[in-house]
Amino acid sequence: MFPDSGTVAGPPAATAVFTTVLTEGPVSRVALARRLGLSSAAVTKAARPLIDLGYLHELAATERTGPGAGRPASPLAVRAERAFFLGVKITADALIGVVCDLRAQVHASARRPLTDPDVEAVLIEVGRLVDDLFGAFPGDRTRVRRLGLALSGDIDRTTGLVRYSPFLHWRDVPLGRLAAQRTGLTVTVENDVKALTAAEHWFGEGVGAESFALVTVGTGIGCGLVVNGRLVSGSYGVAGEIGHLTVDGAGPDCHCGGRGCVESIAGTDAIVARAREHTGRPELTIDEAVALARGGHERVRAVFTRAGTAIGCGIAAVANLVGPTRIVVSGEGLAAYDLFDSHIRTSFERQAFGAAARCPLSIRPLPFEEWARGAAAVSIQSLVVP
Amino acid sequence: MFPDSGTVAGPPAATAVFTTVLTEGPVSRVALARRLGLSSAAVTKAARPLIDLGYLHELAATERTGPGAGRPASPLAVRAERAFFLGVKITADALIGVVCDLRAQVHASARRPLTDPDVEAVLIEVGRLVDDLFGAFPGDRTRVRRLGLALSGDIDRTTGLVRYSPFLHWRDVPLGRLAAQRTGLTVTVENDVKALTAAEHWFGEGVGAESFALVTVGTGIGCGLVVNGRLVSGSYGVAGEIGHLTVDGAGPDCHCGGRGCVESIAGTDAIVARAREHTGRPELTIDEAVALARGGHERVRAVFTRAGTAIGCGIAAVANLVGPTRIVVSGEGLAAYDLFDSHIRTSFERQAFGAAARCPLSIRPLPFEEWARGAAAVSIQSLVVP
Repeated sequence: MFPDSGTVAGPPAATAVFTTVLTEGPVSRVALARRLGLSSAAVTKAARPLIDLGYLHELAATERTGPGAGRPASPLAVRAERAFFLGVKITADALIGVVCDLRAQVHASARRPLTDPDVEAVLIEVGRLVDDLFGAFPGDRTRVRRLGLALSGDIDRTTGLVRYSPFLHWRDVPLGRLAAQRTGLTVTVENDVKALTAAEHWFGEGVGAESFALVTVGTGIGCGLVVNGRLVSGSYGVAGEIGHLTVDGAGPDCHCGGRGCVESIAGTDAIVARAREHTGRPELTIDEAVALARGGHERVRAVFTRAGTAIGCGIAAVANLVGPTRIVVSGEGLAAYDLFDSHIRTSFERQAFGAAARCPLSIRPLPFEEWARGAAAVSIQSLVVP
Repeated sequence: MFPDSGTVAGPPAATAVFTTVLTEGPVSRVALARRLGLSSAAVTKAARPLIDLGYLHELAATERTGPGAGRPASPLAVRAERAFFLGVKITADALIGVVCDLRAQVHASARRPLTDPDVEAVLIEVGRLVDDLFGAFPGDRTRVRRLGLALSGDIDRTTGLVRYSPFLHWRDVPLGRLAAQRTGLTVTVENDVKALTAAEHWFGEGVGAESFALVTVGTGIGCGLVVNGRLVSGSYGVAGEIGHLTVDGAGPDCHCGGRGCVESIAGTDAIVARAREHTGRPELTIDEAVALARGGHERVRAVFTRAGTAIGCGIAAVANLVGPTRIVVSGEGLAAYDLFDSHIRTSFERQAFGAAARCPLSIRPLPFEEWARGAAAVSIQSLVVP
């Protein structure tokens, strides 16, 4: 993070208490002690500075509900508006930004077009978007101190370095440092799929799940994996590359050098290319392909069927190898949700091995603001676990 | 484990100290403290009862070597012969057993044929094999108190229950309890691939690896995964099912209900079936198929090529999704190693995404005694981490 400003992180017990209250809602000290294997005294000691700083507070007796309310339990809760976080998703042609509170609820959003992938040009637009977000934010601006940036590619979150961004054509850009200089905020940079996984893990469908997978469908087909409560990052920096699993040995060559990869069949570019072949219309766009398929064009429809089947095989591979508790499937590609959904499910069910088929799939479209919220979630994590 | 006899396990610090010294060899107290985040006093306190019980000892100054030997470091080492462990692999037609010391070194081995898959018949043979192993073991028999059993299928290690064994046609057999009654030993039961993974993780190529995968090739194609130091078990009991990843959407139907699974192309039964088709010899065995391929029979050779390619795609899927530090490929199927090796590697290298291709593959054949050693390794683990 740049600059390396203060965090609320203290000893491990304090981090564990804060993380649990933050992600799982109001929790009594007794439940915290049991859950974290700490003594009641240790929980009280860990919570004290977080209460003093205003991040946590004790719910009053009248706010408590449910059975057993007769005994004073003093549940601890997060003051969501104690701090706010900017999150920005960088795509090839736009910046999408949000302002979130400590519980990742969105309070404002803004967008700016991006016409130039040059580093300096992107930084200028990031600065302007930050101004727009401050302008749109109705709350106390002094409580906004952190900015999360998310983009696809090979990112080193620890150093804020963009090692490689294929769509911006960047290599080894110290984006964290540069954006911190530009905005004066504490900046965190993360791969966009990992950022979205962080948001689901801490604030979405992954809360409380021992393991969890998020699959994104769009230009790329990506996957974030949480196993035993930790994001899988891969010993060589590669993990969750569901887009490059072979599902058809006789399938098309992929840009990665492989053959029959999920992405070479189900990525947006692949779908468009295949639809162009089948229609003889070399200028066909993805929106037009979707419209043709919805209108009943059999061969274009079959392109989506094949894509959904490939995605389902890839998801089944995740379930068979890693066995997550649940899988969320999302991404801008699912704007054409109706064309994919049943084929993803059918293929998943066929290929999931035995009890792995019991893994629930949530298939839902996802606006770009959700990606921006993922960037904010990583910024929230950086406050808690530096 | 049955019966639930005493273990050396104590507080978490003692378990951590013992596990580290056991798996990583002699380690100084200073290195242990640093490695485990403990104070020197805590390391000394944790080690004391393990030394008193004879499991650990301090190496004398004359035994130390290497730089820095001038400062008295008192490295701790395991007394490997303090305890011995029986390990038995159960296959469809044989029991293979070994006697291992605390560091999983084999001191004796024995085999018995298995002609009847009935539970009682198998238990009788397990009892006889245990007698054979005691007979063959040259050491102090009173130090052999534990037995590990490993077999393929759905096993609940915690309760010693064989939920399902396809090749023995067992369902819900409390093998741990029954074998403990029969032998008087403390018994642990584990899935054979997980047991082999445990052996590699604690005593083989997986030592010190943050993450690690073991792929087994034979009648089934299996995989054990260690991520962040822990075996991945799957939320629904399914994990590491590399054999049921689709690698050829137009491939053969698989017994699992899927299509084009790795196992439907590269499992021993699939190879034999395909070789029979290509030779018109309905009685052809796997050994004959191997001989034909080695002798230059083009179509039978192509069956092995296709199998190796499918295995390589499956291994690449593991690397792309999970990113292990290293991958060991083994199993009885690799008796035909020469027919597979280059195709596994070529296909892995083509399909591994980016830096994932840097993951080293160790491809090596594996005698059944290694599986039995895996069973013993699980028994060793049960002594340390009950």
